[in-house]
Amino acid sequence: MSDHHTYKKLELVGSSKTSIEDAIHNAIAQCGKSVKNMDWFEVVETRGHIVDGAVGHFQVTLKIGFRLEKS
Amino acid sequence: MSDHHTYKKLELVGSSKTSIEDAIHNAIAQCGKSVKNMDWFEVVETRGHIVDGAVGHFQVTLKIGFRLEKS
Amino acid sequence: MSDHHTYKKLELVGSSKTSIEDAIHNAIAQCGKSVKNMDWFEVVETRGHIVDGAVGHFQVTLKIGFRLEKS
Amino acid sequence: MSDHHTYKKLELVGSSKTSIEDAIHNAIAQCGKSVKNMDWFEVVETRGHIVDGAVGHFQVTLKIGFRLEKS
Amino acid sequence: MSDHHTYKKLELVGSSKTSIEDAIHNAIAQCGKSVKNMDWFEVVETRGHIVDGAVGHFQVTLKIGFRLEKS
Amino acid sequence: MSDHHTYKKLELVGSSKTSIEDAIHNAIAQCGKSVKNMDWFEVVETRGHIVDGAVGHFQVTLKIGFRLEKS
Amino acid sequence: MSDHHTYKKLELVGSSKTSIEDAIHNAIAQCGKSVKNMDWFEVVETRGHIVDGAVGHFQVTLKIGFRLEKS
Amino acid sequence: MSDHHTYKKLELVGSSKTSIEDAIHNAIAQCGKSVKNMDWFEVVETRGHIVDGAVGHFQVTLKIGFRLEKS
Amino acid sequence: MSDHHTYKKLELVGSSKTSIEDAIHNAIAQCGKSVKNMDWFEVVETRGHIVDGAVGHFQVTLKIGFRLEKS
Amino acid sequence: MSDHHTYKKLELVGSSKTSIEDAIHNAIAQCGKSVKNMDWFEVVETRGHIVDGAVGHFQVTLKIGFRLEKS
Amino acid sequence: MSDHHTYKKLELVGSSKTSIEDAIHNAIAQCGKSVKNMDWFEVVETRGHIVDGAVGHFQVTLKIGFRLEKS
Amino acid sequence: MSDHHTYKKLELVGSSKTSIEDAIHNAIAQCGKSVKNMDWFEVVETRGHIVDGAVGHFQVTLKIGFRLEKS
Repeated sequence: MSDHHTYKKLELVGSSKTSIEDAIHNAIAQCGKSVKNMDWFEVVETRGHIVDGAVGHFQVTLKIGFRLEKS
Repeated sequence: MSDHHTYKKLELVGSSKTSIEDAIHNAIAQCGKSVKNMDWFEVVETRGHIVDGAVGHFQVTLKIGFRLEKS
Repeated sequence: MSDHHTYKKLELVGSSKTSIEDAIHNAIAQCGKSVKNMDWFEVVETRGHIVDGAVGHFQVTLKIGFRLEKS
Repeated sequence: MSDHHTYKKLELVGSSKTSIEDAIHNAIAQCGKSVKNMDWFEVVETRGHIVDGAVGHFQVTLKIGFRLEKS
Repeated sequence: MSDHHTYKKLELVGSSKTSIEDAIHNAIAQCGKSVKNMDWFEVVETRGHIVDGAVGHFQVTLKIGFRLEKS
Repeated sequence: MSDHHTYKKLELVGSSKTSIEDAIHNAIAQCGKSVKNMDWFEVVETRGHIVDGAVGHFQVTLKIGFRLEKS
Repeated sequence: MSDHHTYKKLELVGSSKTSIEDAIHNAIAQCGKSVKNMDWFEVVETRGHIVDGAVGHFQVTLKIGFRLEKS
Repeated sequence: MSDHHTYKKLELVGSSKTSIEDAIHNAIAQCGKSVKNMDWFEVVETRGHIVDGAVGHFQVTLKIGFRLEKS
Repeated sequence: MSDHHTYKKLELVGSSKTSIEDAIHNAIAQCGKSVKNMDWFEVVETRGHIVDGAVGHFQVTLKIGFRLEKS
Repeated sequence: MSDHHTYKKLELVGSSKTSIEDAIHNAIAQCGKSVKNMDWFEVVETRGHIVDGAVGHFQVTLKIGFRLEKS
Repeated sequence: MSDHHTYKKLELVGSSKTSIEDAIHNAIAQCGKSVKNMDWFEVVETRGHIVDGAVGHFQVTLKIGFRLEKS
Repeated sequence: MSDHHTYKKLELVGSSKTSIEDAIHNAIAQCGKSVKNMDWFEVVETRGHIVDGAVGHFQVTLKIGFRLEKS
């Protein structure tokens, strides 16, 4: 059995009308539809657009790391 | 009619006793008193001061972008 | 009486299952057990690990500044 | 209907013998062959190689963001 | 007569359908409508949005420095 | 009474023939002619130009934070 | 025949019990199972976890660039 | 039982005449004399001094994270 | 005799009403009350607060490196 | 025959009244008067000065890498 | 007559027992012994070594830009 | 006798088929052919090219500092 793993990182932008945490949740949920073995995330940038003088959406760029399966 | 826009970015620090999102809301609300056409924000730094061993205020530095009117 | 202060900064990682703010609170509370005169904090990095396709813990790296006592 | 979107960012390097803009165009055109809903790009790095004492190719690293379809 | 000057820097985002240089020109032209004594610019970020699989606009964030008049 | 403040940051370049500290003083003095409630500054960059093989002026870029009045 | 190429960059984390170089080798070997025309790598971050007071694994984040085939 | 942990990070510089990995090992070994529950390290900087035209020591700055005991 | 040393870095903020150099001196003097074998310092950030439209204190964040004793 | 090369990087600032690409060409052409075996360039910064409310010159800082001859 | 200039930047470390400004002066004076047409400098890093618990020397890394002569 | 030194830093890229350390050694050895009084090095970037799915060369960009002789 191998004694090491390799991971891949994807960069996604999650958005939410309510909170930074919710934007993170949304990005991870969407990513999980096509990726298995998600292991950690790193927030890269937090921004958002403004609509009618208030936050429209929080937009959180994050990297998601997941373990690659050995073929 | 012109086919491009120019935007200006201001740097503000919003604060809140309760959350990072609320500090962002406060900065945007204050900015909106003197600026029209606010379009997006970017979080630059998150910090705060500590009072009696607990968070006193969250202080979020953000840049706010708004579209300049053509004169 | 001296007219200046010196501060020290410690780097901690707080974690929380619920929010970024709560992870900050936890780190400050833990730090306060051994440090007096905490004055401010700066968020350095926000990340977390993922368990079963959802956020397991938010992990927030922050620096905490406190005033050194004059001996 | 959902009230938020998730985006993915890919990192590409476009090249061109003539200009930085053309290198950006080439990367986006190539990316569009396999990706739908491209929305924005960010220039990460501009470099190039030199041949016989002159620019051989401009090489522009850019991130391309596109909206993920809801499955 | 004073032997020193003070400068102020504004952050703008110029855009153009054709080139990075043109986006810079547009931002400087717009800035010049309200600011005198512009002296230099620094490119902070180059990005753009994509429309129908091609560059819609180049968006160049730049800082513009100008000399403050002595009152 | 409100329990939070919002601050704005301006970016200036002060200059001085004698010292870095004096360049900072000059920028703050100039800024104070049009801004009230200045609260802190952050040095962003230190540079200068050279005349006849010696420092002509120190040029210090700094951000100045001031509290916005509630209207 | 076209006179330019486009490249794509993937971000991977290789790990190894023995050395930084071996972690790089492992990431490239794993990447090569699904990607052709790998051309260069860039080390982004070097870290590791500690087990029983000693290095458990070196973990090297690297970007791997490869040439996209023209379709 | 608590559902979260807090970690502290220390910054050390390990050195070695032979390799980068050995400098990391030396810093961790020295840190382990006074710290328990070491969990991970992050390489911050790699440098060294040169003696007689060859590497005298590799000097690796790393941050070491360890779990704080609940008191 | 061992052929290598390990160093630790602490992060302090020194302050002074008069100069950046004096703020550095104050931080080192305070650090020296509890730390032996101080070897070098690195300036991380220079800022200050403003009182009545003038510099109140220069605040210089620096890292101080010192050699760890072999136990 | 040796199986490796060493490269040196020089930092230059090219300028042009017309375009960023032309400023890069000018810097490389000037560098080529004294350096052989130029191999690649990296753009480090793009700025310029403003004359009469318009771009006077684009100023592009770039690093130029060239292969050192084995003596 | 040509309508543009090319500049070269050198990286030096000046040192001084007394001040940061003096370290800058020393580096520029030394550079001027072999370089003509020095035009500007940029401070890259400020550090120093500590002797007997006090600053031994301030060490300031700066880049010095000078205009290349047309041959 | 003078009480201070000035240093110059050169930026080189060393390469090696076997290890990062060897690439550093090669760059220092090459630099030493034309430079005296080399004192320290700083690793700036680690990358490499890939040949047939494996590391062809490690390429390490480093800055080498050396003391300037007083003329």
